[in-house]
Amino acid sequence: MIWADDDLTRDAFLGGRVTLLQPRRGYRAGTDPVLLAASVEAEPGQSVLELGCGAGAAMLCLAARVPGLDLWGVEIQPGYADLARRNAGLNDARVTVHTADLRALPPEIKARRFDHVIANPPYFDRARSRPAPDPAKETAFGAPGSLALWIDAMARRVAPLGRLTLIQKADRLPEIVAALHGRMGGLAVQPLVSRKGRDAERVIVTARQSGRAAFRLAAPLVLHEGERHLSDAGDFTPEAEVIFRHGGKLRI
Amino acid sequence: MIWADDDLTRDAFLGGRVTLLQPRRGYRAGTDPVLLAASVEAEPGQSVLELGCGAGAAMLCLAARVPGLDLWGVEIQPGYADLARRNAGLNDARVTVHTADLRALPPEIKARRFDHVIANPPYFDRARSRPAPDPAKETAFGAPGSLALWIDAMARRVAPLGRLTLIQKADRLPEIVAALHGRMGGLAVQPLVSRKGRDAERVIVTARQSGRAAFRLAAPLVLHEGERHLSDAGDFTPEAEVIFRHGGKLRI
Repeated sequence: MIWADDDLTRDAFLGGRVTLLQPRRGYRAGTDPVLLAASVEAEPGQSVLELGCGAGAAMLCLAARVPGLDLWGVEIQPGYADLARRNAGLNDARVTVHTADLRALPPEIKARRFDHVIANPPYFDRARSRPAPDPAKETAFGAPGSLALWIDAMARRVAPLGRLTLIQKADRLPEIVAALHGRMGGLAVQPLVSRKGRDAERVIVTARQSGRAAFRLAAPLVLHEGERHLSDAGDFTPEAEVIFRHGGKLRI
Repeated sequence: MIWADDDLTRDAFLGGRVTLLQPRRGYRAGTDPVLLAASVEAEPGQSVLELGCGAGAAMLCLAARVPGLDLWGVEIQPGYADLARRNAGLNDARVTVHTADLRALPPEIKARRFDHVIANPPYFDRARSRPAPDPAKETAFGAPGSLALWIDAMARRVAPLGRLTLIQKADRLPEIVAALHGRMGGLAVQPLVSRKGRDAERVIVTARQSGRAAFRLAAPLVLHEGERHLSDAGDFTPEAEVIFRHGGKLRI
C-alpha cells in the first residue's frame, strides 16, 4: 500500500527533534520504537541495521541522539519503506532503506555485518490470537514469521564485536531467551512497565555477538507516574520524560 | 559429614516460628530458602517435594505458613539429611527425608507426583568459577550437576496440575528459561533485589505442569530500604519484613 499525502499525518517525536510521516490508519509508531532507539549503545560513526523499520521511527530517533551513524533499514511493505526514505530526508538523516523480506535479504545487506542490529518485531502471535482486519497492520504485527526467525536474521548480521537490541512484549521473553541462549553473550533484559509495581509489559533485550558477561535483569523502567491513568496530557515519570521529550539514552 | 552438636547452631527463622539446627561451617540457610517457601502457592493437604532440601529451611518455613502439608525432601549429603529429619521433629512437621542423589531418586519418590516441587539449586557454576574449599559447602553449591539436570528432575515429579518453583541467581535465568520453555506452561519470574533500582540478584521462577497462561515478569521484590547498606540490624522493606519476620506469602 502506498498512501496519498492526505492519508498521512506528520508527527513529532523526542520533543520535536524528529518528524515522522505516518499513515493515518495501519501501524503507527508509539513509544516502543523510541524506547528501542534510546537503548541502543551506538557510537558516532557506527553502522546500524534495523529489520522491519516501518516508517523509520527507531532509526531516526537514534540518529537524533547519535550523530554520524551509517543507518540501514529493511522493510517488507513498500509503502512503509517509501515513508522511511521520505522521513530520512525530512530529518536530514543518511539512511539506506531496502524493500525486502527478512527471509531474503538483498546482497548489499547480506555482504555486510553491522555494529548494531535492532528490531521491534511484530507483536502478534499467530498461535494465540486472530489476524488483524487491516492487511498492512497485519503485516506489521504478525508476518513474515516467528520471533525466532527474526532473531536468527538479526544475529546473522551482527559484527563480531557488535550488539543486537530488540523490543518486544514481555510475554514473549522465553522465546527470545531460548533463541539467544548459547548463541550470543552478554544478554541483558530491561523490563518496561506503565506503572510502578506492575508486571513488565515490554522488554528490551540486548546481546553481544561474542560477549561473555553474565546475564543481567535490570530494574524496570516505569513510564507513567501514579497507580493508574490520570490524564492523556502525559504523566511520564522523570526517567521516561528524559527519553520521550529530550531524546535521552536508556542505559540498560 | 555428620556434625557433633557442638558444631551446630540453633537459628530462628520467621520471627521464631521456625527453629533450625545448622552446621556452624558449610552451607547455612540465608534468606533464599525463606523467599522460596514464601512463594510456593501450596494449599493445606497438598504434597510438596524439595530436591536438595539441606537442613530443611524451605520445607519448614513452608510448613509454618501452610498447615497439613505432606512434605518430602531429598538431600544427597547424609549430614544435612539427618539435620532435616531432626529439624522436622523440632518443628513438629511431618517430613519424609530421603538421602539420595537427584539423578537416582528412590523408588518411593519416583512412584509419586507432587502438587509442588521446589528447589534452591546450587549457585555454583563450574563453567565460570572455582570449587569451594570446603567439600560440604562445595556439594551444596556446585554438585551434583547442572541446573538443567535439576530442572529436569523437578519437572518429572510435578503432578499434572502441579507447579514447580525454584530460586536461583538471576544470571542463570536464561538456562532456567531455556530448560522450561516449551516443556512447562504458566511460566512466571519474580526478580529479587537487595536495593531499589538495582539489577535483579535472585529470581524465583515458577511454572505449571500443564499451564497455558502467558509468561509473566513480575515487579521486583525489594528486600532492603535505602540506596546502600546502613546497618546490620535489619533494614528490611515492609514487603520483606512481612515475609522474613511474620512468615507472610510472596504472591508472584
